[in-house]
Amino acid sequence: MYNSEFNKSKCRIVVDAMGGDFAPQNAVVGAVNAADEKQNFELFLVGRKKEIQSVLSSANLSFNEDNIIEADEVIGMDEQPTAALKLKKNSSIVVGTSLVRDNKADAFVSAGNTGAVMAASTLIIGRIPGVGRPTIGQAMPNETGISTLFDVGASVDSKPRHLLEYAIMGTIFTKEIYGINNPKVGILSVGEEDTKGNEVSLEAAALIRKTNLNFVGNVEGRDILKGTVHVVVCDGFVGNIIIKFGESVLDFLKFKFKEYAGKGFFNKLKIGLVRNSLKSILKDFDYQEYGGVPLLGINGISIIGHGSSTPKAIRNMVLRAAEMYEKNLVSKITNSIKQYSSLT
Amino acid sequence: MYNSEFNKSKCRIVVDAMGGDFAPQNAVVGAVNAADEKQNFELFLVGRKKEIQSVLSSANLSFNEDNIIEADEVIGMDEQPTAALKLKKNSSIVVGTSLVRDNKADAFVSAGNTGAVMAASTLIIGRIPGVGRPTIGQAMPNETGISTLFDVGASVDSKPRHLLEYAIMGTIFTKEIYGINNPKVGILSVGEEDTKGNEVSLEAAALIRKTNLNFVGNVEGRDILKGTVHVVVCDGFVGNIIIKFGESVLDFLKFKFKEYAGKGFFNKLKIGLVRNSLKSILKDFDYQEYGGVPLLGINGISIIGHGSSTPKAIRNMVLRAAEMYEKNLVSKITNSIKQYSSLT
Repeated sequence: MYNSEFNKSKCRIVVDAMGGDFAPQNAVVGAVNAADEKQNFELFLVGRKKEIQSVLSSANLSFNEDNIIEADEVIGMDEQPTAALKLKKNSSIVVGTSLVRDNKADAFVSAGNTGAVMAASTLIIGRIPGVGRPTIGQAMPNETGISTLFDVGASVDSKPRHLLEYAIMGTIFTKEIYGINNPKVGILSVGEEDTKGNEVSLEAAALIRKTNLNFVGNVEGRDILKGTVHVVVCDGFVGNIIIKFGESVLDFLKFKFKEYAGKGFFNKLKIGLVRNSLKSILKDFDYQEYGGVPLLGINGISIIGHGSSTPKAIRNMVLRAAEMYEKNLVSKITNSIKQYSSLT
Repeated sequence: MYNSEFNKSKCRIVVDAMGGDFAPQNAVVGAVNAADEKQNFELFLVGRKKEIQSVLSSANLSFNEDNIIEADEVIGMDEQPTAALKLKKNSSIVVGTSLVRDNKADAFVSAGNTGAVMAASTLIIGRIPGVGRPTIGQAMPNETGISTLFDVGASVDSKPRHLLEYAIMGTIFTKEIYGINNPKVGILSVGEEDTKGNEVSLEAAALIRKTNLNFVGNVEGRDILKGTVHVVVCDGFVGNIIIKFGESVLDFLKFKFKEYAGKGFFNKLKIGLVRNSLKSILKDFDYQEYGGVPLLGINGISIIGHGSSTPKAIRNMVLRAAEMYEKNLVSKITNSIKQYSSLT
């Protein structure tokens, strides 16, 4: 069922088997599940061959041994990223991203040390010409579908030209992956009026206005979940704080429901009656559902997942990588960045 | 029942009767309700006397006519703040804040044009010596009580020394108003490690570390609702986006519950059964409950409310002003800013 024949039209995806809090278990199971489900890509697993094979056999999964790439070092979740990359040349992260750089693979997927995956993707795979700062986006639910937020933590202290790059890359991603034609772009600010903002957001808005992106100007914090625009652009410092705050809202709600249920039999009964309904409603807030997030602006595909990624999250990340490849995201971003090179 | 006798030990509170989307109705009713409830302050209403009296009589409220201060101009909710202050010298906002400046009142409470109230409070009442930027804080619910977030929009592009000021003022406010002894202070950042942050947050953390505030270092977006610290310090650009995002989570949840209930009779029945429970659980997210927010760092008390403030919100704002006066917030802030004057 699995085709390891070289096939250039198929996306070659390398999954970091050693990445994540539950590696190699979740990474291997999730990746192989994705490959069993869809045949539009060729899967490689990088990491400690013995440990990978042990997971495969205990989970009763079949996988072509030739597609397991040995990398005997592991970068820990808490290691200092750049130091670890220098020290551990034979780590799954360095080996995996090197395969993409050397055009032996098209995509790298990892739930490992976020900083190390980001640094390796940027330094080893390399940036698209003209991109100052690669960016990570996050899909957010809204009343009618999905909005994306760029950047959510790849870069802090972004300059106005970097926010322009996020707008360009975010537009292409949102159009291609979520099928939204000519997505509306807004810049996150403290008021709708053009005069509201901080120095960087005001200068960035002036730059984005010079493009033919579908730019509507400023949006506010409340517009993210309202879905006022399809692409929300902000500095990674702000975006990172928002998504972590958003995740904690879910935890806080769960806590409140539990607290309420604990206040007496009748309360417990009522919450019990709607437990499944609540779960289905709150699911939209569970960003894990979306799997990992792509690092855009590098010369290849790299998807970065939560350390706590489940097999399902890994599966979603792998399928997302294949989709990005099929839709030529990297070359589309390259062309669009080139188009606006006089502005950045 | 109402005592208009001059009494220096009582806080003299001026309420902007013309402020807010539902003025003078909500402002007048909320303020008089507060005065009927507690006698630890003297209430003044500033605005168009005739309109105020009409609300009083139609709501069947008794109020000492001498405590109604005529101000026949009204600054609209959407007027450009500084221009409006210059043009409308006889507006309720200019007249009210001037009373505080002239020591004829101790506190100003308004649900009017936020920018105009902030500008009037800063320019007319004036800043405490040594304060570069006054700040607005917001109480946020957490699993064990309340945390406060400073700044939530008074200032963008804050310098490190301004974040230090927010930490000092936020500590005093949180201690005095929420009764938290030696409140823990954190600076909002993108990671817990001391090395994580943007230029301003890193420099600010270094400054705050030099104080004897109970500073724990960096906190992340998820820590706000977790209650990891009692005072969360950030630039107003970030804080404003967070609280507006937070408010929208409530709206989004209401939307999702409604959507779910609309998907069939059984769903509707289930949501109907728990409607009141849901309301009581979501109440914690309703920031309106807390009334308005004080502008700290000015030489007097000024409480700023949402334009959509209900009578209850106005009542809460008035009682908060009286409490701030009783607890000598302004002189405590003045002393603490002085203590750290070598750092700012």
